[in-house]
Amino acid sequence: MIKVTVWNEFLHENVHEEVKKVYPEGIHKVIAEGIGTDGFMVRTATLDQPEHGLSEDVLANTDVLIWWGHMGHDKVEDEIVERVHARVMNGMGLVVLHSGHFSKIFKKLMGTGCDLKWREAGEKERIWTVNPAHPIAGGLPEFFELPQEEMYGEHFDIPSPDETIFISWFEGGEVFRSGVTFFRGQGKIFYFRPGHETYPTYYNENVRQVLRNGIRWAAPSGAAAPVRGNHQPLEAIQPKS
Amino acid sequence: MIKVTVWNEFLHENVHEEVKKVYPEGIHKVIAEGIGTDGFMVRTATLDQPEHGLSEDVLANTDVLIWWGHMGHDKVEDEIVERVHARVMNGMGLVVLHSGHFSKIFKKLMGTGCDLKWREAGEKERIWTVNPAHPIAGGLPEFFELPQEEMYGEHFDIPSPDETIFISWFEGGEVFRSGVTFFRGQGKIFYFRPGHETYPTYYNENVRQVLRNGIRWAAPSGAAAPVRGNHQPLEAIQPKS
Amino acid sequence: MIKVTVWNEFLHENVHEEVKKVYPEGIHKVIAEGIGTDGFMVRTATLDQPEHGLSEDVLANTDVLIWWGHMGHDKVEDEIVERVHARVMNGMGLVVLHSGHFSKIFKKLMGTGCDLKWREAGEKERIWTVNPAHPIAGGLPEFFELPQEEMYGEHFDIPSPDETIFISWFEGGEVFRSGVTFFRGQGKIFYFRPGHETYPTYYNENVRQVLRNGIRWAAPSGAAAPVRGNHQPLEAIQPKS
Amino acid sequence: MIKVTVWNEFLHENVHEEVKKVYPEGIHKVIAEGIGTDGFMVRTATLDQPEHGLSEDVLANTDVLIWWGHMGHDKVEDEIVERVHARVMNGMGLVVLHSGHFSKIFKKLMGTGCDLKWREAGEKERIWTVNPAHPIAGGLPEFFELPQEEMYGEHFDIPSPDETIFISWFEGGEVFRSGVTFFRGQGKIFYFRPGHETYPTYYNENVRQVLRNGIRWAAPSGAAAPVRGNHQPLEAIQPKS
Repeated sequence: MIKVTVWNEFLHENVHEEVKKVYPEGIHKVIAEGIGTDGFMVRTATLDQPEHGLSEDVLANTDVLIWWGHMGHDKVEDEIVERVHARVMNGMGLVVLHSGHFSKIFKKLMGTGCDLKWREAGEKERIWTVNPAHPIAGGLPEFFELPQEEMYGEHFDIPSPDETIFISWFEGGEVFRSGVTFFRGQGKIFYFRPGHETYPTYYNENVRQVLRNGIRWAAPSGAAAPVRGNHQPLEAIQPKS
Repeated sequence: MIKVTVWNEFLHENVHEEVKKVYPEGIHKVIAEGIGTDGFMVRTATLDQPEHGLSEDVLANTDVLIWWGHMGHDKVEDEIVERVHARVMNGMGLVVLHSGHFSKIFKKLMGTGCDLKWREAGEKERIWTVNPAHPIAGGLPEFFELPQEEMYGEHFDIPSPDETIFISWFEGGEVFRSGVTFFRGQGKIFYFRPGHETYPTYYNENVRQVLRNGIRWAAPSGAAAPVRGNHQPLEAIQPKS
Repeated sequence: MIKVTVWNEFLHENVHEEVKKVYPEGIHKVIAEGIGTDGFMVRTATLDQPEHGLSEDVLANTDVLIWWGHMGHDKVEDEIVERVHARVMNGMGLVVLHSGHFSKIFKKLMGTGCDLKWREAGEKERIWTVNPAHPIAGGLPEFFELPQEEMYGEHFDIPSPDETIFISWFEGGEVFRSGVTFFRGQGKIFYFRPGHETYPTYYNENVRQVLRNGIRWAAPSGAAAPVRGNHQPLEAIQPKS
Repeated sequence: MIKVTVWNEFLHENVHEEVKKVYPEGIHKVIAEGIGTDGFMVRTATLDQPEHGLSEDVLANTDVLIWWGHMGHDKVEDEIVERVHARVMNGMGLVVLHSGHFSKIFKKLMGTGCDLKWREAGEKERIWTVNPAHPIAGGLPEFFELPQEEMYGEHFDIPSPDETIFISWFEGGEVFRSGVTFFRGQGKIFYFRPGHETYPTYYNENVRQVLRNGIRWAAPSGAAAPVRGNHQPLEAIQPKS
């Protein structure tokens, strides 16, 4: 049983009619529904809750945290960002979605600007698998299409990913590394590009399969926590003159 | 249930008394026993069997193949090597152990010389985890020791690994990238260094944990097989003048 | 002064009128001309020469070898392939172009199938830089276009590249990792996708810049050759009971 | 001509007699002297200078910045850290030395804790090249020794490096990834482990060779700055129903 917390800022859905139509109860509800219950125990958390729903206790009981944010990035308290960061360092998986590329937590973990090209033109996106050996590609066709999505284009200002699993083709002429992973501390991070709030992307069965795969991949490794600091020698050290 | 085939050349155990004492029924039996039955269905195969025990049927029903070879590398038929290679390309996992670094199949998959430094001096090896986020490090302490092993030293002539999980410290002064992974085609490869035939390495509980982790990691992804060759356009191509 | 040898099978240019029009003296001549003389000493070699123009002496005096082949892959002698492979292992750079993805030497170095999707439809290719920090991207715009090229599409069956510098967008709907590098032994390999024989790709100034960058990047490191085999201890090894 | 700025906090040398003896005019002077003038234009900067010697103008005229810090990490102004970070993002190389692993700039760029094991016991360090194809290994033997150094041990809490060039063996039983590189934004980062202030490490000719190699490797690529933000389509987008 992997314990998943789906975090959503839950703002667009309350102020934009267009978004409310697609996700009437919030993006987090549809993401959670898409993950399902087969091997997962899923709860949700939102920006407006105390501690944004991410108390020490909730994080301690989260194996993988999913993050959707956009217009409220700045409203996320620095203290909570530090808390999530610390939890990734000690093993929690993090799945960052779409506009989460500009969240405080993702930028802090990447160490780079995380900026990119974008365009809202309802264009076609075709997502190609470039690492069919990777578990995150499991159960997927070699490509799948989203009839309408926001475009994100290169250069995406992230570290060289540890693994690149998906690359997107966009109708308007750009490409994008759409599914990338990063090992950080004892934790694992999966960034997945699609998911603009005005399109029904999280109802798409292939997208849902990617999320389930990503969660399983990002689950904690269970390796021992590394010891830091001053370390006694394990072998005799010869005196030097 | 992951279907595992443990392949062993099974030669040293028949001709060297010292090895027979440690592995009276063969290294493969002790490896298979160490993997256990919790989630695994394990069988063994050896060089002396017809088709080295690696018929088309056996390979088609193998999710992960484990390879231990040394003095008999040259006795492995090229046709079987091609068969194993093709099976890795279409998704089978491969776990190559110790002196398997010089096997035909590993050299073919790596494309490099795969040579290294070595020394049989019964020295201490200390294996450090350098990627505690990786599932292959699961359930392991931050380092573990083997009181006596053959030394392998850098430079190990392999491609830059996709992931480096373990690095060994040797008493005699060398280091070695001891646990490394490679994505190849639809398949995954894990090379794990320890396992000299004169030492009881495969009885070691940490080594056994690494093997179980490596098998789970190397299991097929289940992604669709990529289509190759001449490809019809997915979008209209404008006529050029 | 980097010593460059441009190898071309030089077959299409003799049998296909369409190709002869674009490259009347051979693709190798136009590649060599594009590299120029500023820091480079360039010679050419072709399939029909003794030892395909790649004698031990020529290779010993080559820092970086450029490879263009297609219809004559099978005509390249295995002995010469082994020789080039050995030279890469001991430090020579190798720049493999376009249809060279299916050459014996590239397949041997990669260890994978190296297959891909393809289509000859005169379509537009747009090449995006995804690693602007890499020297192979030096002097290039963030993207450049080739008005007509053969399409190559994913999944490209190569190892996960050590560095991915360019990704192509194709008019017909595919993407491709078009500029990728690999460290192998003491040598470095750069694969660059464009260069179909019926289009004037090697006259393109951006393509020429990529080639010059790639050659400089692939030049030998000058590190000491690693020692292999049985190794005397560098530190005292304690007797074990 | 690569423009190099050697930054040193320059504190130990003023307060610890033991350090003053080894580096009477400061570590930066000895590092600068070791880099030399053959292809390099070197200046120095220190913590106590206005803006820590790292004004906008100095950084704009720096191709590669070298960073040595330890007891004064907290004294570095956040504004200067942001400035250096921005300059790396737009192409400046950064070479971080030894205890600089805990500097604000390195931690910000890595996004991880950057902690490690350490021990001051005057023990032997043996530095092995594990990527002899890499230019940072140029001109070096396959290993070299430092008779006395501080120990740094794994797990080193950094992202998986883009390239691992050196791994250290320590007398007391640990290993460490001692020479690692990272592509970040348009910039390149090289971390090199040795250099404890009480030992004459920066007088060592092999260490000096590593520094010169690292600077050349980290020099700006000269690629075009990527464009970010809202992007007009490069191809026609079909109206959707």
